[in-house]
Formats: sequence, structure tokens, C-alpha cells
Amino acid sequence: MAVARTSPTAAHDLPATRLALLDEPLRLYRGGVIEHPVIAYEALGTLNAARDNTLLLFTGLSPSAHAASSPADPKPGWWESMIGAGKPIDTDRFYVLCINSIGSPYGSSSPTSIDPRTGRPFGIAFPEVSLEDVARGGYEVLRQLGIRTVACAAGPSMGGMTVLAFAAQFPGVARNIMSISGATAANPFAISLRSLQREIVRNDPAWRGGNYERGRGPRGGMRMARKLGTITYRSHEEWDQRFGRRRVPETTGQPGDFRAQFEVESYLEHQGQRFADVFDANCYLYLSRAMDQFDLAEHGAGSLDAAFAKFSGVQRTLVLGAQTDMLYTIDQQTLIAEHLRKAGVDVEFHAFPSPQGHDAFLVDNARFEPAIANFLAKVGEGLGVRG
Amino acid sequence: MAVARTSPTAAHDLPATRLALLDEPLRLYRGGVIEHPVIAYEALGTLNAARDNTLLLFTGLSPSAHAASSPADPKPGWWESMIGAGKPIDTDRFYVLCINSIGSPYGSSSPTSIDPRTGRPFGIAFPEVSLEDVARGGYEVLRQLGIRTVACAAGPSMGGMTVLAFAAQFPGVARNIMSISGATAANPFAISLRSLQREIVRNDPAWRGGNYERGRGPRGGMRMARKLGTITYRSHEEWDQRFGRRRVPETTGQPGDFRAQFEVESYLEHQGQRFADVFDANCYLYLSRAMDQFDLAEHGAGSLDAAFAKFSGVQRTLVLGAQTDMLYTIDQQTLIAEHLRKAGVDVEFHAFPSPQGHDAFLVDNARFEPAIANFLAKVGEGLGVRG
Repeated sequence: MAVARTSPTAAHDLPATRLALLDEPLRLYRGGVIEHPVIAYEALGTLNAARDNTLLLFTGLSPSAHAASSPADPKPGWWESMIGAGKPIDTDRFYVLCINSIGSPYGSSSPTSIDPRTGRPFGIAFPEVSLEDVARGGYEVLRQLGIRTVACAAGPSMGGMTVLAFAAQFPGVARNIMSISGATAANPFAISLRSLQREIVRNDPAWRGGNYERGRGPRGGMRMARKLGTITYRSHEEWDQRFGRRRVPETTGQPGDFRAQFEVESYLEHQGQRFADVFDANCYLYLSRAMDQFDLAEHGAGSLDAAFAKFSGVQRTLVLGAQTDMLYTIDQQTLIAEHLRKAGVDVEFHAFPSPQGHDAFLVDNARFEPAIANFLAKVGEGLGVRG
Repeated sequence: MAVARTSPTAAHDLPATRLALLDEPLRLYRGGVIEHPVIAYEALGTLNAARDNTLLLFTGLSPSAHAASSPADPKPGWWESMIGAGKPIDTDRFYVLCINSIGSPYGSSSPTSIDPRTGRPFGIAFPEVSLEDVARGGYEVLRQLGIRTVACAAGPSMGGMTVLAFAAQFPGVARNIMSISGATAANPFAISLRSLQREIVRNDPAWRGGNYERGRGPRGGMRMARKLGTITYRSHEEWDQRFGRRRVPETTGQPGDFRAQFEVESYLEHQGQRFADVFDANCYLYLSRAMDQFDLAEHGAGSLDAAFAKFSGVQRTLVLGAQTDMLYTIDQQTLIAEHLRKAGVDVEFHAFPSPQGHDAFLVDNARFEPAIANFLAKVGEGLGVRG
């Protein structure tokens, strides 16, 4: 049987990332099959003797499993301020398993995986990925590690949807849940934006119908798609405060010179370039579509009530969102909280007035950290100390 | 001296559009010169004997001067429900002059104008256009028609900014003003979106640095830019109500098939195609940039208070906006209203709860029509009947 092993991924500088090689083909939610599935993850803290102190963490679309620094990888992780010894997600207390999504280029099976039949990346021959499959990836890692229940399953953004998929698919495994800036299903505004982002990438001639050589993909399309993402991850208020109408040094002043004239344009250019440098375009298309396709109601034969009935064994839930989030609106967070209450689950819900929009969980530490710390203090009661 | 003449524009099927050929080169706000300036416009209603019943109307970025149908052109105009005999902008009472913006492809001087030195369109050799120049176009039409003051200067969206530029540049000409869903200056969120739209167009290889053949321009880029516009012209609420997550007939189901799966995607495709069919790409780039660059405070040496002091001769102003407008936020409408009050101008301000966002003025007739009708009833008091 294949077992989890410590191994740097080939493609990326992620020395703390481990690979779980599954011993069976993985049948995907929409029907495809991954013949030799791999799930990448990072682990922080220590699994206790009772094996009941795991905090299972799903990510947004773009991060790797490197959620926080550790001796194995001292680089700051994507949720560095939240996770660590004595931090809100306390690695002295919890065994934190951060799961790299199937479909992501950071180690798990994805369009960048090598197809053994051709010796080349699958590209768009890779089967369609759903958030149910991403959740399943977390479940398979637990199985390999001999963990039957987790103290908490959690995730922000795409991870906030994935954690709902996890609870619906594997009732009884997560004893507590945190869904942060997620949704039961994307609304048409978010769908429109992501659909356009995918179209921008696909219209870059360098995409070549998905058959680009590694390192020669649709960089321009990815840069512009990320700019659109970045614009919508924050809020008016945030952009007003940070940039206003401050200008960059004058361009040539020629009428045909359309380069950046405002600071906010330069900032977006930087963000777009950075993303285009590291993220595979086909992976982006797959995960972006998975976010649009996800609908928790499918787990209740079209009824959200029926889907949330599967959460009835959950002890406590924490639902967090920002009022300024334009992608996953505060109404969508409220909907999650209301349905959980209706299902008889204990719910703590905060609609924070953070100015940072969808990204607030990454930056509005003053609001998100105490809420998560307090919730996990309750979750942690009665857990054994570290094994 | 060149005079206004009735003439269909060569490029478009706009039989009611007239061309004012100016007899002097036009020095533009940012320094360029148009040697043989032309301003296209349409006129509805009758100028009275006192020549004081004009309603001067500026447009958004994309419409022509065909604001409403008439015997000369029975096609519906872009504000058909608002303008006509007995309608809120009543052509039995007002002489409505709708001005085609300099920089627009519908008849006024623009990148599509023929450069007499080359016999080909100017393209990006056309000088930079500002909203001050668009306002100036309206002023020049008035001069040609022998109109010294107008009963009202009005405009929605880009026109809502242009009307502010008009009042600041030509104090005393507009006796009353309506600014609808406009702003004193674009905020960084709107700048970001438009900057990205321009980048999408410029990154289409068919743009060819602005030197495309007519009819062979960056259609894909224009289609995607318009989709982004359309997404942001409305609101979450509107998209939720109209489309929700309704699906279109299944695509092939192949993982590499990224075509539309949701109705909202098909709708946007239709809108994008339609715009790409009719609007010149360079004109789009010019007017889009003009909206970002506009800052009314420039007319007060950096002070909005000083700029609005130039409005002190205005009798009445109507400021309208939608609370759900994500491009020109309701805070920006409030700012206009507050500054007008501070300048001692009579202000009527409505922050409508319309669900249709920036486009509400085009569709939320139940709110916008009575507000405009009531305002113009006051404006019309004391006007002579038709000349």
C-alpha cells in the first residue's frame, strides 16, 4: 500500500509538503478517474494519542498547502498570522493538516501531473475536478494517517465551500466546522467574473487550446485574469483608502500610450505578474470552474435543507464573512448560518464590517483572529494534550 | 463659416444625426488639436423664439446622439422611454440637443475620422480626448445654433461627469443641471476595471498597436471588455433575480470544454458580441481613459470647493444615483450634492434603492421618470411655449 511520505514536490520549492500516494484509482464526483492519485499536504503540530486533535484545513483557489512556516520550511505561509504555536489556530494544541487541492499545481494530482501514457502533462485531458473531489482529497489523507474524526474542518474562500462539501460527503468525520467567506453555491455575479477570467486566459493565443509547453503558457491572459480577481477580492473602501487617485510618474503623454497612470494600476500589474509567474493556467481554469459548478444543494437532491441535514452530527460551527465581500456576499454567509441553525447545529456567525472584502480573512486580523481563537478554545476543550 | 447641416454620418445608419462642422481648429483640454473638428448631434422638439428652452444632453460612453426616435429616425433611441412628446424630457416643451462625444465613432471627430494627410483613419494618432472636450463639443453646437443659455444641461454616467465639466468650463450657460449616476472623479475601483478593459483590448493581437484595418479590429478583446462592463453595470441583486444559477443546455461535458454553462454567461456573450460588432476599439480606449482622467477638482486648482464655486449661477440641480451602483457609488453622488449645496445651489438629490446598479437610469423608470419629470416641470416654468 502506498503511504504518505515526506517529499518535496518536484515542481515547487515546498520542502514541508508531503505527498499521499493513494493505492486505488480515484473516481471523481463528475465521473472522471485519476488512475494514480496524489494528495499533497502539510502538517503542523503533533497528532495526539487519541488521534482526535486534527484541524483539517482547505485552501482558497491559489495557495499551496504551505499555510504557515515550520522548521521544515521557514518561509511564511499563506495564513502565517493565524497558524502556529500560541496563535489562533494553535499548533501546540491542534494537529493542523493543510490540504493541497486536487487540480492545483502544488503537488496534488492536476492538469500538470504527468500522464504515464504520454510522458507529458495531462493538460485539459485531466478529468473535471469538483470541490467534492478536493474535499475527498482531505478525507484520503486522513485515512492514510489513521485519523477517523477531526476536531475541526475549516477553510476560507474556495476552502469555505470545500468544507461544506466535506461535511456533506463524510458525515460524522468533522466534529466542528469553520466556514469562512464561503458559500453554498456561487451567485451569478461571481460566476460571470470567473467565466470572464477563464475566457481571458483561453483567448491568449499562448494557451493553444490547453496544449502549451511548460513555462510557455498564457502569461498575458493569466496576468489579466488575476488582475480581475484582485480587483474583486477587496472593496471600494479598501482601494479608496490605499490608493485613491494617486498617480505614478507620467507616461510619455502620447495619446497612444495606454500604460498605467494611477498607482492602483501599477499595484494590480505587480499582483498579476506574480501570479502568472507561478500558477499553471490549466489548473486555474479547472479550479475556477469547480467554484462555479459547486452547489451544496446537490447533496440534498436539490434541497439545501436536505443537504444541511447531513450536518446534524456537527457540534459547533463558526461562520465568518465580511460585509464588503462582493464575491461571496454577506447574504451568502447568512444563508449558511441560517441553514445550520435550522439543522439544529450550534452556530456562531459574524458579519464583520471589514473594509477588505473577500480577502478580509487574510488581513483583518483584529476581527478574524479573536473569533477563530475563541471558537477553537471551545473546540479544544476535552482534547488530550499532544500525543 | 461652416454651419450645422443635416447629414447622415457616413459610417452609421443614423439618419437624424446632424454634423456641426467647426470653422476653427479645436485646441483640446490636454493640449492636442483637431484641425477640422466635427460634432455630431441630434435635435428633438423645437427651439422657441426666446431661444431659451434647450435641454443639452450628454451621453454615456457607448451611445450615439440618437437618444429617442423621431420622424427622421424612427428607431428607438438609447433613452427612448425618457424623451419625447409628453415624456419626462418633454419635446413639446424642450428643444433637446443630444451631443455625440468627441472620441466616439458615431459622427463626431474621433480616432475613426479620416486624417486628410494619409487618407486613413487617425487611429491612435488622434489626440487625447478629455471629458472637457466632450463638453466643449456641446458648447460649440450651441454657438452654431445661436443658443446662449440652456434651460438644462444633463447627462447620465459619463454624461453625468461631462455635465459637471460643462458647468465648470462655461459658467452661466446652463441655468439648471441634472447629473445622473456620475461622479466628480472616478474612484480606484472603477479605474481598475476600465484599465483592465483597455488592457484586454490592447492585448488582442488584432489591435495591432491601434493600426487595424476597419472591420478587422480586436473583436475578441472588445467582446471581453464589454462583458466586464456589463457585469459591473448592474448589481448582485439584479443578476440574482434575472439569472440565478439557471443553466444553458449542457455542453459536451468534456473536461476541456469551457463554454457557457450558465444563462448569465450566455447573456454576457450576447451583449459582448453586439458591442464588438458596432463600436470602434480605439474610440473605446480613448473614451474609457477620458473617464479615468477626469477630475472636476482640476477646475478649482485641485479644490473641489473651488470648482463647484463656478456652479453658483446655476438655479437648480438634480442629482440622481442608485444605491447599488458599484462603478459610481452612491457616496460619489452624495459628494456632488453636498458640494452643490455648499456652493449655494438648490439641490434635489435622490439615492434610489434601484436593484439595477449603474444602469438603473435606463431601466428603473418607476423611480427615474417621475424625479426627472418633476424637476423639469420646475425648470420649465416661465419658458415660452414653442417658438
